[in-house]
Amino acid sequence: MSETQKKRGELIVLSGPSGVGKSTVIAELLSSRPDIHFSVSFTTRAPRVGEQDGVNYNFVSREEFERMIRDGELLEYAEYVGNYYGTSLKVIQEQLDRGVDVLLDIEVQGAAHVKEKCPEAVLIFLIPPSIEELSRRLRGRNTDDEEAIARRLVQAGEECRECPRYDYLVVNDTVVDAARQIQAILEAERCRTPKRLHLVEGFASAEP
Amino acid sequence: MSETQKKRGELIVLSGPSGVGKSTVIAELLSSRPDIHFSVSFTTRAPRVGEQDGVNYNFVSREEFERMIRDGELLEYAEYVGNYYGTSLKVIQEQLDRGVDVLLDIEVQGAAHVKEKCPEAVLIFLIPPSIEELSRRLRGRNTDDEEAIARRLVQAGEECRECPRYDYLVVNDTVVDAARQIQAILEAERCRTPKRLHLVEGFASAEP
Repeated sequence: MSETQKKRGELIVLSGPSGVGKSTVIAELLSSRPDIHFSVSFTTRAPRVGEQDGVNYNFVSREEFERMIRDGELLEYAEYVGNYYGTSLKVIQEQLDRGVDVLLDIEVQGAAHVKEKCPEAVLIFLIPPSIEELSRRLRGRNTDDEEAIARRLVQAGEECRECPRYDYLVVNDTVVDAARQIQAILEAERCRTPKRLHLVEGFASAEP
Repeated sequence: MSETQKKRGELIVLSGPSGVGKSTVIAELLSSRPDIHFSVSFTTRAPRVGEQDGVNYNFVSREEFERMIRDGELLEYAEYVGNYYGTSLKVIQEQLDRGVDVLLDIEVQGAAHVKEKCPEAVLIFLIPPSIEELSRRLRGRNTDDEEAIARRLVQAGEECRECPRYDYLVVNDTVVDAARQIQAILEAERCRTPKRLHLVEGFASAEP
């Protein structure tokens, strides 16, 4: 049996504190790996300037989101700073079954739920080079006032405490390096022994 | 504390059946990663045509090898097709402490011993695309007669049964791809959470 026939996609979960530069790293990663399916989350929060429905998020009402919860349509969901965020189970399963790698951008609560439901998921936490640099990046975004920045830094600290649940920590020092490291993780994960034992089936009993 | 200060080298163990093309893959890997220290094994077997003492192996007498065993100088050693093969502990520790990645080319018994003594070692098994291709490669080497080839194929089957002890299986389809996958594994392993938790120390208690 060929390698391709049995190949299942990798489920990659990327988390990281606000301001770490996750969106930029994801854009860089997808530009070199356009075959990765980036799962667009559902959210009840209002779109920020420049955000597009169906691209950055699927923006839905609170009522609609709560219906999706009730109907079991979500792989995970969480409430974060007063808004719901969630991931559609059906879309992801279809892609993984077709052998497509799926990337989820979700926060720490959601990531923990995904790992529970899909233990084979690969959890990557993106960290800033330092907390000072994170603070600089948050200020540079110009989307938050000082109080919101302070709140985000406290939140970042809390999220970083969840790091040990993740499989990998990637430092977003430069975007290119961070994206390259995530690509390396994906390539390495595909080589993990339990995912490849079918390739040596029959070797042990082979006759010259 | 910077990332570099705490960095310890990765210990990589590469195994694979005779004829799979391990030496070629190692040469390719070292040409793109000349910073990797390739640990030259000690052996009591006779040099093959073109093999150099201190380069391919450190060729020693059976008496000298048995002295090294007695004096505890070896990380691992094994007897294989009537000859001893072993790895010097001291050289490896020095390199790892300096932050240098160390590559060991050893067979399955030796690899198991290394994993026992150094659980953080990364074990990679190089497999051929198929048993037929392995048989072709062994014949192409022109170093063995048919009987020896048959024996090597049986041996290959036995070695492949040990695959589940390895962390990764890399298919040597093309040398460049196999070397690239090993590089990716190295890069990914460096990002594994337990090796990087020191990078987020202090984040959790940070003040804006």
